[in-house]
Amino acid sequence: MLRNFEELIEKARSGNKTKRVAVAAAHDLHTLEAVALAYQHSVVEPVLIGDERKIRELLEMHEIDLSESQIVDTKGDRESAEMAANLASTGDVDFIMKGGLQSSEMLRAVVDRRFDLRDGGTMSHFAILEVPNYHKLLVVTDGGMVMYPDITQKTEILNNAVNALHRLGYENPKVAVLAATEEINHKMPESVDAGLLKERNSKGSIKGCIVEGPISYDLAMSRESAKLKGYESVVVEDADILLVPDIAAGNILSKALIYSGGAKMAGMIVGAKVPVVLNSRGASMEEKYCSLALSAAAAHYGVYF
Amino acid sequence: MLRNFEELIEKARSGNKTKRVAVAAAHDLHTLEAVALAYQHSVVEPVLIGDERKIRELLEMHEIDLSESQIVDTKGDRESAEMAANLASTGDVDFIMKGGLQSSEMLRAVVDRRFDLRDGGTMSHFAILEVPNYHKLLVVTDGGMVMYPDITQKTEILNNAVNALHRLGYENPKVAVLAATEEINHKMPESVDAGLLKERNSKGSIKGCIVEGPISYDLAMSRESAKLKGYESVVVEDADILLVPDIAAGNILSKALIYSGGAKMAGMIVGAKVPVVLNSRGASMEEKYCSLALSAAAAHYGVYF
Repeated sequence: MLRNFEELIEKARSGNKTKRVAVAAAHDLHTLEAVALAYQHSVVEPVLIGDERKIRELLEMHEIDLSESQIVDTKGDRESAEMAANLASTGDVDFIMKGGLQSSEMLRAVVDRRFDLRDGGTMSHFAILEVPNYHKLLVVTDGGMVMYPDITQKTEILNNAVNALHRLGYENPKVAVLAATEEINHKMPESVDAGLLKERNSKGSIKGCIVEGPISYDLAMSRESAKLKGYESVVVEDADILLVPDIAAGNILSKALIYSGGAKMAGMIVGAKVPVVLNSRGASMEEKYCSLALSAAAAHYGVYF
Repeated sequence: MLRNFEELIEKARSGNKTKRVAVAAAHDLHTLEAVALAYQHSVVEPVLIGDERKIRELLEMHEIDLSESQIVDTKGDRESAEMAANLASTGDVDFIMKGGLQSSEMLRAVVDRRFDLRDGGTMSHFAILEVPNYHKLLVVTDGGMVMYPDITQKTEILNNAVNALHRLGYENPKVAVLAATEEINHKMPESVDAGLLKERNSKGSIKGCIVEGPISYDLAMSRESAKLKGYESVVVEDADILLVPDIAAGNILSKALIYSGGAKMAGMIVGAKVPVVLNSRGASMEEKYCSLALSAAAAHYGVYF
């Protein structure tokens, strides 16, 4: 269990060997700054991929110290993305970060069969938040990738998140499958799906976690609210993962926590053989840095080893 | 424009005459306490409907001063709900509050044709929140009633919210139609609907407000985020109303703002001829009190006058 980003960053630094990240289209100032910070703190060892001349210009002009890092010169975004995927597929790096290119271009390379980075299931967005007044980190999934997951995709999104937390040292994370209600209502498909996920967990086909659902946000996050409503569950005010019904609900939730709740976020794409850092344009330097730490902590050493 | 609940309460007290509320199934301690507080502060003039013996017992046992209030003795929840709807239909009260009975029972009476309280369109849930660090009150709709609104229902939910704000003294409230993105994406129906609502507003068929959408939460609420993304709109960091795609997104958003963001909420059902206060079991005394103030401020004097 991780209480805050400080512990997450410590986790990323605690391995035998610093994790290596391939940065696709690294010729982007904010990306280089975040990578340099993570490098200085021994969170990552970067391979910078992209327009070498531009990269060197940016490093020099902004006095960014990545002078010892490997730079791979590529022409255009596609080549840069494919080079990153290739380095991940050969085990030369442990994970991938998207720099100054479109997310779609980055993901196209990740799912390209030549690089064999798919893991068979759904890839999903994993956001982890440090929320003031909550006693530990909180995962929200999926508010960034799968738009309207069906029950099969929800199961995979849930498993992706649980696997990631296992990699971060969690034993049996608690999952709240959110809905507007804590009752199964056949007019509300997300409440029915939530009940099914809970059942699959209790019957043992979803493993390594404790699933509660359907459950409303207040019951998942507030013991006081649960008490008032006479609701009992071990997940009450102790959820590690909030599984949301769809991308809009997840996106709105994460952003409300950040922009109105003072939360900080880190994010990555999970469900491939390596994590992929895929921050949005609006991401702060701190978010990029914490996302690098998150992926470093969650990555295996070299995908095939 | 109302900056906080203090101003909302002041608004409720500022009329020529204190608004009258019919409290259905008033034999409920928390309801009576909230009503008494609102009565003491000249926010409402209550008519207590329900089991008269129980009501008098509660008032006496807990020393609640509502001794001058009218009490109407009824047998059972249905009679109590229908009596409240009837008093609203005759103009004897200005709005309705649900006490200790099921929401469905209360709503059944409100939509009952005999009482002629329907207004032709969709009834919807209107939540108004005082969010720390936001410079004014924020409406979230609909996170409590309409489950999966289509474009027609969304138009009516939007109009209901705008009408309510007009009643509260707003001239031209700003509406953010939320989605996971600020671009219209035909794979995401809520983004298409949001674009349509914006278009209907710019063509003049949705009036009395400024509609922006699709727009993500961060763009609606943070100038800094909009700047980073190069996004411009008058709604940026100035939204009065957040229109959400469905009940799950709205419910999760409101509760995240309350339970993780330190916000306070008041709520009512709008779209009928009178507002209906319909707090959930988990509602605090303060939420009930503020909801009474909200409905009192938004109610007309007597439905037919």
